[in-house]
Parts: sequence; C-alpha cells; structure tokens
Amino acid sequence: MNPLEIAIVGGTGAEGRGLARRFARAGARVIVGSRDADRARVTAGELSSALSRSIEGVENGDAMSRSAVVILAVPFTHVASLLAAHGAGIRAGALVIDVTVPVTFEGGGPRLVEVEEGSAAEHVRRHLAPHAMLAASFKTVPARLLEQDDLPLDCDEFVCGDSREARDRAIAVLGVLPGLRAVDAGALSAARTLERMTVLAIAINRRYKIHDARFRVMGLP
Amino acid sequence: MNPLEIAIVGGTGAEGRGLARRFARAGARVIVGSRDADRARVTAGELSSALSRSIEGVENGDAMSRSAVVILAVPFTHVASLLAAHGAGIRAGALVIDVTVPVTFEGGGPRLVEVEEGSAAEHVRRHLAPHAMLAASFKTVPARLLEQDDLPLDCDEFVCGDSREARDRAIAVLGVLPGLRAVDAGALSAARTLERMTVLAIAINRRYKIHDARFRVMGLP
Repeated sequence: MNPLEIAIVGGTGAEGRGLARRFARAGARVIVGSRDADRARVTAGELSSALSRSIEGVENGDAMSRSAVVILAVPFTHVASLLAAHGAGIRAGALVIDVTVPVTFEGGGPRLVEVEEGSAAEHVRRHLAPHAMLAASFKTVPARLLEQDDLPLDCDEFVCGDSREARDRAIAVLGVLPGLRAVDAGALSAARTLERMTVLAIAINRRYKIHDARFRVMGLP
Repeated sequence: MNPLEIAIVGGTGAEGRGLARRFARAGARVIVGSRDADRARVTAGELSSALSRSIEGVENGDAMSRSAVVILAVPFTHVASLLAAHGAGIRAGALVIDVTVPVTFEGGGPRLVEVEEGSAAEHVRRHLAPHAMLAASFKTVPARLLEQDDLPLDCDEFVCGDSREARDRAIAVLGVLPGLRAVDAGALSAARTLERMTVLAIAINRRYKIHDARFRVMGLP
C-alpha cells in the first residue's frame, strides 16, 4: 500500500508545522505548502533534517493540486482568497480537512470572531469547490503540543464533515497518529461547537497557567 | 461545621433526582423542590429510603427561600415563570447554580434551542433577582449517570459564573462529589460553549450507541 500523502496548506505556521511533524513521524508523505515557495522549502528542509524524513515544500496552489488529502492550516482570514485562487486545482474527490479557528485576542481574553456562515468550517464549505469533500478536525488539539512531537497527544480529536464519507476518511487519516482518538462529531455545523471548545481550552490554559488543555470524551470505550 | 445545604428546584426530574442522590450520598443536606409539594414529598421519600438519608420535599418556592445554595433543575422553558413567582424569596447572597440546557429533539437529532440571551445561563441571569449570585454547571454530565450513583462520575464538570466568587463557591459545592473535578470555565457567557457541548455529548451517545458521554480536560494536572 502506498503511504498516506497529505498536503498541508499554510504548513509554515505553528499548527501546520505541528501537523507536518506528527504526520511525517507517523510515516505519511507530507507536502508543506506556503504562499511563498521559498518559505515552504525552508520549513520543509528544517522538518526533513529534524525528523530524518523527506518532506517537500511547495507553493500552496501546487500543494493543493497534488494530494488526495489537503489540510487547510492557513489563518482563517486567508481561506476565502486561497480557495478563490487555487480551489479549482484541488483534485476531484479530494478530502479537505479544515483546521482553522477564527479566534481573536482583541480586548483581553480569547474569543470567537463571528463568522457569517456559523463556523469556520462552514465558511470553508461555502468557498470550496463542490468537487472536494470537506471535514473539519484538529480544532481543539493545541498547535504547541502538535509541535512538541516527543510528547504524547493523549486526547481525543473531534471530526465533523459534510458527509459520512468525508468523516470516515478524515477519521482514517487521524488514525495514523499515535495517542490520538478520532471522535465522529457529526455534521459540519458541529464545528460551531468545536471552535468554541478551542476558545474554552485557550481560556483554561490562561486561567490555570497550563499550555496544552485539550479534551477527552469519557464513557466512550 | 454544618453540612452543605442544597435546595434542588425541579428536583423530581431526572437531572434533579440525580443531583439529589449524588449530593445526599456525599453528606449534603438536600431539599427537593417541585411545583407540586406532594410530588416533592414522594420523590424525597423515595430518595430517603433508597439512600438511608433524610431528604426533605417541599414546594419550589419554599425550597428556594430556605437554602444558601439553590440548584435550578427545572426545564429551561419554566425558568422565567419560576423566577418571576419565587425569585424575590431567594436569600440575599445565595448562590444559584443553573443546570438547564435548552435542547430539543424536534426534527431528528438533538439541537440547541436559540436563546435570546445567548445561553440558558444568561437567560437565568436576566430573570434572577440581583441579590443572588449565579453560576452554571452540570451542563455536560449526563442526568442518567448522576442517577446511577453506584457508577463513578469519572469526568470533569465545567463551572462558569457571573463573578469569581460565584464560580469559587460553585467549585467548592462540586468539590464534595467524588470522581468529579470542577473546571473554571470563566464568565457566564462560557455557557454558550458548555450548552453546545451537551448537544455534542448527546449526539456522540446516539452515534456510538453509548449513554454517558461526557468530558475530561487533558493537560490539566
């Protein structure tokens, strides 16, 4: 079987780098995308050396067209323009996994930016070409923990999506990561809850002076 | 020290009975309230026999005026009329803990009823006399699990509130229950997240054919 191939668009940010590390370590073939191809190559080179794995760095549009699994890890505010520029190039039947959270720290504590569509995931769905299927995940696992890949993830991560198939495929993708259990959270609109849970986790981090608050579902064998 | 005294308004419903069982078992003096005093007495009698504890059953208004800690476990739709009728009788400085969740099953799966104030907890705050302080909790621990008091709770429960004092007092109240860790979730508006998490837990129950999905915060020592 060919290894899982994953393109991480916006892969030079903290969340993207963390996902690249974890997936590369788990044996996936990872392509790191950035708006700036040089920057993508630098990050990919750093990750390749650190992990002794071959990770490729390319421009975002290239990354999106080259993989059957595309993780969207750009800042939420860049999603619409990214998809307008490169969405048509996504492969037919590709699975896009949205990991963006529209959080702001303006005015003190963390809070959610109001999104017209109800959630970042639904915003992505509105701008994503219909030939791609969409799931949302990695909303609540902290970027910082993803990056520290010597630490166990030891938590659950919720997956919601626009179809059962999208969720099942995303759950299989998450399944390669040790210590992470994927939990099916249902329709894409469940992202309204998951994105709020990110803000809750950040608020708990600040209040308890910890760094990696995240969730586990108890009572699920 | 006198034992903790807790009035559970709407104490004859599943959530109320479950809380009554757990708190009585933990040594608290529990007063069960109902709109119908006879019904309150019947439930209190059943609980007293089952637990070999003395539990009192009184009319909701009586229950609210008699305790420094009042748990609101009536259906969400009854909150406004209950507080209009009996809110003035709540003791000055009493701590009210809202446990209501405005969930509906109309149209298939569980979903949140839109609440003008943003959450049930904020709805309670709007209708609650200013001389009472308000926290919200027990939004995500399942009523069914509370009732089965031979099973460990083994989870976290989030507490939010309209002041630091309200949260600290509610956290102390939760602290008497074995197996339950109280997590400070911040301002009352965090209930917008917590009430959605209830719906998420119910949806997970249905999807995975389990009964007691609930949450734990990982990374919090």
